[in-house]
Amino acid sequence: MLQNLPKKIKIVEVGPRDGFQNVKTFIPTDKKIAIIDGLIASGLKALEISSFVSPKAIPQMADAASVCAAVLNKYGDKIEASVLVPNLKGAQLAWEAGIREATCVISVSEAHNKTNVNRTHEESLQELARIKEGLPDLKMRVDLATVFACPFKGWVELEAVAAMVTKVAKLGIDKVVLCDTIGVATPDRVFNVAKSIATRFPKLNFSLHLHDTRGVGLVNTLAGMMAGITTYETAVGGLGGCPFAPGAAGNTATEDVVNMLADMGIETGVGMVSLLDVVKQVGSDVEADLTSHLSKAKIFECMMAK
Amino acid sequence: MLQNLPKKIKIVEVGPRDGFQNVKTFIPTDKKIAIIDGLIASGLKALEISSFVSPKAIPQMADAASVCAAVLNKYGDKIEASVLVPNLKGAQLAWEAGIREATCVISVSEAHNKTNVNRTHEESLQELARIKEGLPDLKMRVDLATVFACPFKGWVELEAVAAMVTKVAKLGIDKVVLCDTIGVATPDRVFNVAKSIATRFPKLNFSLHLHDTRGVGLVNTLAGMMAGITTYETAVGGLGGCPFAPGAAGNTATEDVVNMLADMGIETGVGMVSLLDVVKQVGSDVEADLTSHLSKAKIFECMMAK
Repeated sequence: MLQNLPKKIKIVEVGPRDGFQNVKTFIPTDKKIAIIDGLIASGLKALEISSFVSPKAIPQMADAASVCAAVLNKYGDKIEASVLVPNLKGAQLAWEAGIREATCVISVSEAHNKTNVNRTHEESLQELARIKEGLPDLKMRVDLATVFACPFKGWVELEAVAAMVTKVAKLGIDKVVLCDTIGVATPDRVFNVAKSIATRFPKLNFSLHLHDTRGVGLVNTLAGMMAGITTYETAVGGLGGCPFAPGAAGNTATEDVVNMLADMGIETGVGMVSLLDVVKQVGSDVEADLTSHLSKAKIFECMMAK
Repeated sequence: MLQNLPKKIKIVEVGPRDGFQNVKTFIPTDKKIAIIDGLIASGLKALEISSFVSPKAIPQMADAASVCAAVLNKYGDKIEASVLVPNLKGAQLAWEAGIREATCVISVSEAHNKTNVNRTHEESLQELARIKEGLPDLKMRVDLATVFACPFKGWVELEAVAAMVTKVAKLGIDKVVLCDTIGVATPDRVFNVAKSIATRFPKLNFSLHLHDTRGVGLVNTLAGMMAGITTYETAVGGLGGCPFAPGAAGNTATEDVVNMLADMGIETGVGMVSLLDVVKQVGSDVEADLTSHLSKAKIFECMMAK
């Protein structure tokens, strides 16, 4: 049954964006860049490296332009660097910093969208249209939040997901990230939603962003792979907790996913030894409790995935 | 692909044995019994409730006879209460305490067996034969440790597992627990070993005992279910860490497994609300860091599995 899994998985590292933005204490810009350097050295080629959000709202991301300039200057086209932009202004700043791909977040649940970005669905879609019009050469993708469940309204219907995918596709979006924002999905839900949505929109490119809040990070990754999804957003150290569950596990950890895939013979291009070095670096340079399993587990050299 | 899963899963709660025996500070007997009461009230019907080991070696288990007497007196045949016995002497004490089913641990890796129980394979099998001969009416099962990997020798070959299963089956054992002692297996390994061994020994009853050390507790449970295994040993709170990885996650947590299965519509007979009450009780009465995910996650009433 496990033989039909994809042979290769693309990991999009979101720690420097989704992870760092949840960290209260400011991480010095050079340390941010050093961690990104380490992640790239471990083999990660697609990374969300910052957010062009209001520095008043999220002071941690105030150095977005500097981080982008340093990373783009060093790696250029050798990596896929993207950022989060909440609006046209952020998108313009990202563009000026040299960024050519960005993402914005829209929640399938309007109640969550209002709490998260203080906008109705209509307002979020209008802002996305303005970005597409103002910066037609900036490749935009959409992080579709609360695809499985909303903390206020409960389980989300598949039809609501499909309706929102239809709307963003009409704006020219062809990359959509299906996000389990509060980490409550289980394998059946992930398999069914991913399979149904990917089948219904064959021209779009779907990836999964799964949280490990209830320990389901890896099992939901496997379910997504069984449904044919080959791109996963993960965060080094499991950074990026859910504000609704302080102390709980955050994003599915890059090292936990890479370890599982490597042992299963599925290619990610990421080396465990160098990745675990970055995990240590994050543990010492970032004031956050790492929630990844590999950061606490003993590594047995005799059986470590290469 | 997920449609062919078992409709019903049997959970064997090992927290009061495998969990408690790893806790340094003595848990008063009445608190142990109260936790077992809570676990049974939540719907768990099969439990390892203690170990008849040397109280000098493991003082935590010195009250094994009292715990067993209290539990058996209260519940009798309504539950499947079992214990761990390391030798004939422990088995005799268990029998005298009213216990009618027990387990002993043999590691597939002889290097691990020597470290864990200070015996060669031959010595372990001889002791098991003595128990079977001395107490023919005590139902014995075997916890087969290091089925996937050994911390000293690395990955374990399937043939070594099959050879040990053959040997214990010759002694009349028909229940074997396949244990990922150090929590390093990944879904492919679990699926392949479980499927191969269960197919090769159709008359034996196999269950899985999976650790969450590397975050693979739930994904390996799913892999086991895909291979047709319907019984899983788990521990409330994720108690029962691996001595090789202090601070890392321990046994796959009962509440993490029950939450996933309930949401998938797979029957366990366990109620989440009452189970989470026991998790809180364990958190306050047992001096151990709970490593389960559900013990830290926010519970959204609006979407909780019933």
